[in-house]
Amino acid sequence: MATVTGLTRATVSALVDDLVTGGLLTEREPAPRTGAGRPAVGLAVAPDGPAGLGLEINVDYRGACVVDLAGTVRHRLVEPGDQRLAGPQEALAGLGRLAARARALAEADGLTVAGAVLAVPGLVTAGGVVRIAPNLGWQDVVVGELPGGPAMTVDNEANLAALGELDVGDLPRDFVYVSGEIGIGAGIVLDGALYRGSRGWSGEIGHIPIDPDGPACRCGARGCLEQYAGQEAVLRAAGSDTVAALAIAAAAGQAAALDALTAAGAALGTAVATVVNLLDVRTIVLGGCYASLLPWLRDGIAAEAGRRVLTAAWSPVQLRAATLGPDAAMLGAAGSVLRGVLDDPARWLSRPRP
Amino acid sequence: MATVTGLTRATVSALVDDLVTGGLLTEREPAPRTGAGRPAVGLAVAPDGPAGLGLEINVDYRGACVVDLAGTVRHRLVEPGDQRLAGPQEALAGLGRLAARARALAEADGLTVAGAVLAVPGLVTAGGVVRIAPNLGWQDVVVGELPGGPAMTVDNEANLAALGELDVGDLPRDFVYVSGEIGIGAGIVLDGALYRGSRGWSGEIGHIPIDPDGPACRCGARGCLEQYAGQEAVLRAAGSDTVAALAIAAAAGQAAALDALTAAGAALGTAVATVVNLLDVRTIVLGGCYASLLPWLRDGIAAEAGRRVLTAAWSPVQLRAATLGPDAAMLGAAGSVLRGVLDDPARWLSRPRP
Repeated sequence: MATVTGLTRATVSALVDDLVTGGLLTEREPAPRTGAGRPAVGLAVAPDGPAGLGLEINVDYRGACVVDLAGTVRHRLVEPGDQRLAGPQEALAGLGRLAARARALAEADGLTVAGAVLAVPGLVTAGGVVRIAPNLGWQDVVVGELPGGPAMTVDNEANLAALGELDVGDLPRDFVYVSGEIGIGAGIVLDGALYRGSRGWSGEIGHIPIDPDGPACRCGARGCLEQYAGQEAVLRAAGSDTVAALAIAAAAGQAAALDALTAAGAALGTAVATVVNLLDVRTIVLGGCYASLLPWLRDGIAAEAGRRVLTAAWSPVQLRAATLGPDAAMLGAAGSVLRGVLDDPARWLSRPRP
Repeated sequence: MATVTGLTRATVSALVDDLVTGGLLTEREPAPRTGAGRPAVGLAVAPDGPAGLGLEINVDYRGACVVDLAGTVRHRLVEPGDQRLAGPQEALAGLGRLAARARALAEADGLTVAGAVLAVPGLVTAGGVVRIAPNLGWQDVVVGELPGGPAMTVDNEANLAALGELDVGDLPRDFVYVSGEIGIGAGIVLDGALYRGSRGWSGEIGHIPIDPDGPACRCGARGCLEQYAGQEAVLRAAGSDTVAALAIAAAAGQAAALDALTAAGAALGTAVATVVNLLDVRTIVLGGCYASLLPWLRDGIAAEAGRRVLTAAWSPVQLRAATLGPDAAMLGAAGSVLRGVLDDPARWLSRPRP
């Protein structure tokens, strides 16, 4: 450890003592001695240490999850239901109830919830206002606090999912995460860090026009990618009720399902080509409903990207399914809380206790 | 100076002595005394100091310019002519002759050419190979050295123009420069620095599809922006022979000219909306032929961007004409040589002399 970090043995030892005292680490039996030197004391993440509360409001569900410092998902609560009908106040009130249940479950496990992050499919200001979330029908929604805590921040769902993939995935330092929900967002990772844009509003891939005279989009424009490859558009074209039903129909070779996915793949490939031509990233990670549908989308995306990416002959675009699957944004939100703890353990250790 | 840089007066004094001895600065008469303290010795850039040789091969011309350390363009040589017909070997040989003439003119002025940078409308590898320049018809062209020197590097023309604008322009830290030539490229500046992409191949805005079933593009795909808003496409639609003639026709209110520019503006606005939605930059700088045509393009771009940029209601896209005009890439190339000198004056001062 001293070699890698430049820290002395004494410094590390004092830091470990702090983390053990603070409940982030526990000591366990030394591992069997395998080489020279004194046997090292084994360390494990404390089972009753801090946890992150990941929350999400998306178009057709809201959810909460509790992830511990070892990365284990301890609880996952998802309530399906159209959040557009609910309106922001009812959606946020329902989320508050879900968060309280998740926090109670975490505390029953002996965990301390270190914070909460909420993922939303929209553009969020630094002050936690959802400026616009076209598919929710939200505009200038002030999210506020969770009743009873913990402190909550708000972020874009594709950004959080990209951060989650960056934590767990075996990914290059440059990639774009594409979130296939009813809306389509992107989280752009450049040189190992999330690129948020000058005001945090980057990654709106869902509104790349596929045909400028195409169908009307909820954003007010026409022919946006979401109208061709968004979850609702694909299910409608396929005549399927759910993503799972669509995957089953496609696996069974049903023509309507395969045609719908081929068309969605071509539209996605057109947008992916634009992203690659502009940003020169080589890897695209497909999440949300695209993670499970990738087997039937892949050829359509690759064909269109191969045709439109100027450098495709030298360096074909790499397409990968998201490791975290459809929960990537919510898990990324919880991970984002834990990253905050690990980036500044002293701050967490010195927190006010009840 | 000590306050701003943290350097001591003695260090600065020694540095200035080096720069004066090395021929980068000259001392001049002290400025009239206006406050307390000893009068400062005046300093000016040396008239016989280093100069940058900026070179460009574009689709319908090749050029060379000499810029001195004060930013003054001392010589500008442009040879119109279709470089596609010439082929890479002849184009590069012609460029070599032009570079030799420019260097001779610089030396006759007493300047020392510190290096050369060549701007090309294509994707360049770190090793100076033009991987692909669709509008020139170049693929895997090894550029090589200038006969007789100086050392030359190769870069993308839109990247160099963006760097040139960054040097001279009163621009925010995030902007995208759009180069309107026969091809259309972009130089992306994020947080005050050029974003090159993972392999240096970023900014290919010209191949954003406007209509996936549109006219064939030289890149092999269909419906790319260049086929709607590239210089050749706009001149053809307007029935004008040159950009200057098109501007005159538009100023005179001729319908064909105005219609062609309105259509080009709408296509450009669609692509600009995609760039802003993806990257969250607020400012677009229009260069090449767009700099002089902006009065007639502006409304079309702004209308389409206003319709398609999700955040347009809170923050309209800012459109600006390039300060350096149609020579921006070549001037940016020369500036890039001078930036190298200023970033490491010691290296230039210790260069081997003939």
